[in-house]
Amino acid sequence: MRLRGRKGIRENLEQQQDLVVLDPREYKGRWSEVFGNDHPIHVELGMGKGKFISGMSVKYPESNFVGMDMYDELIRRASEKVRNHWQEQYQTEPESVRLALGNIESIEEFFAPGEIQRIYLNFSDPWPKKKHGRRRLTHPRFLEKYCTLLNDEGEIHFKTDSRDLFQFSLNAFAASGLQMRNISLSLHGEGINEEHVMTEYETKFVGQGMPIYRCEVVIGESALKRYHEHKMDEF
Amino acid sequence: MRLRGRKGIRENLEQQQDLVVLDPREYKGRWSEVFGNDHPIHVELGMGKGKFISGMSVKYPESNFVGMDMYDELIRRASEKVRNHWQEQYQTEPESVRLALGNIESIEEFFAPGEIQRIYLNFSDPWPKKKHGRRRLTHPRFLEKYCTLLNDEGEIHFKTDSRDLFQFSLNAFAASGLQMRNISLSLHGEGINEEHVMTEYETKFVGQGMPIYRCEVVIGESALKRYHEHKMDEF
Repeated sequence: MRLRGRKGIRENLEQQQDLVVLDPREYKGRWSEVFGNDHPIHVELGMGKGKFISGMSVKYPESNFVGMDMYDELIRRASEKVRNHWQEQYQTEPESVRLALGNIESIEEFFAPGEIQRIYLNFSDPWPKKKHGRRRLTHPRFLEKYCTLLNDEGEIHFKTDSRDLFQFSLNAFAASGLQMRNISLSLHGEGINEEHVMTEYETKFVGQGMPIYRCEVVIGESALKRYHEHKMDEF
Repeated sequence: MRLRGRKGIRENLEQQQDLVVLDPREYKGRWSEVFGNDHPIHVELGMGKGKFISGMSVKYPESNFVGMDMYDELIRRASEKVRNHWQEQYQTEPESVRLALGNIESIEEFFAPGEIQRIYLNFSDPWPKKKHGRRRLTHPRFLEKYCTLLNDEGEIHFKTDSRDLFQFSLNAFAASGLQMRNISLSLHGEGINEEHVMTEYETKFVGQGMPIYRCEVVIGESALKRYHEHKMDEF
């Protein structure tokens, strides 16, 4: 098998303008126009090969999904997965989903304040060395950006197999004064939880019996109130 | 070896009025008088055999310690441990520590609002069945009591070997709007952390290579501010 060259991949992506966004800066503040509706926008930061964003987009067609990653090849692979998934499920080309090429460091150049309803962080790079802590996608400097871009109903859904990254992230959420809920130290502890669409990594790790850690963060002034309305009756 | 009878134990405790408090209701709002000073009062809820409270009281003689448990025999065993520890360390009878007999359900009858500076919850009973969730010492109904009894500088220091209890507790702290810090999913992950005085359970579990979970909760309106002053530079 011959690997496709860099140039070939870029040409491939350029031909997929219905699904692939090569310069998300163009759409800052205009994502509703891209989707042609006002449905809430969910963004996965670091979508990898696209299993999660693909699964979510067919499962929740009433939401708009943007999968972001910084490598052409990942966008290409995810685009195949999304198209196949939509063909299987709806026998159409994908509608409420876009795959965007971009570095998350620049996320505030891709979205306007309040434009995002939900951010997914799935199995983000744990950057285990302390000196690389600032690169972790749950570092307070990123959380600050996310809070600006999320609307009043905004949420961050985070899952990882890395105990160290999870520990770091819980402390970062707490230090940033963010309201957490549904903290789970073993997401699939009692068998696979079908409610959650799984990523490639997740399928692999759960198969190996490793715990998956997960947490939701609720944004907005009324975060605590919303939390109580929904969750206090669980105790 | 003959087990000491119930009556014998109670007589033993009655003879230790310098150390043992059989009816903590007597001292509600007057613990400073008991200790003869205004040093902060740290209370361990469920002290078991007393290794932790004993170790803490000799390590931090400038704080007052109260170890609580509901069984005469535990108080007796802890009293021996505390006396031995003080003899070894200071060649005196114990001073800044009391062992109090009482059911934590009634904690608001033992302490006045704002009388406690710190609560320790070490390896509390996880009550694994869902129907017993209300008995867990980190259930929101207990957290509400603690918040009343803790002063503005108040903190809760919680550690456990139970992943399920830790998960429940993180969610309870979050749901109660409490500020967390120093969340650790593996307290002794990199060898035994000597900074923390260990309990009987802890010594055993760490010896078996099991993770210990730990979290601090900061009370008071300025909790987030205090967090930031002390902790934000860690990121």
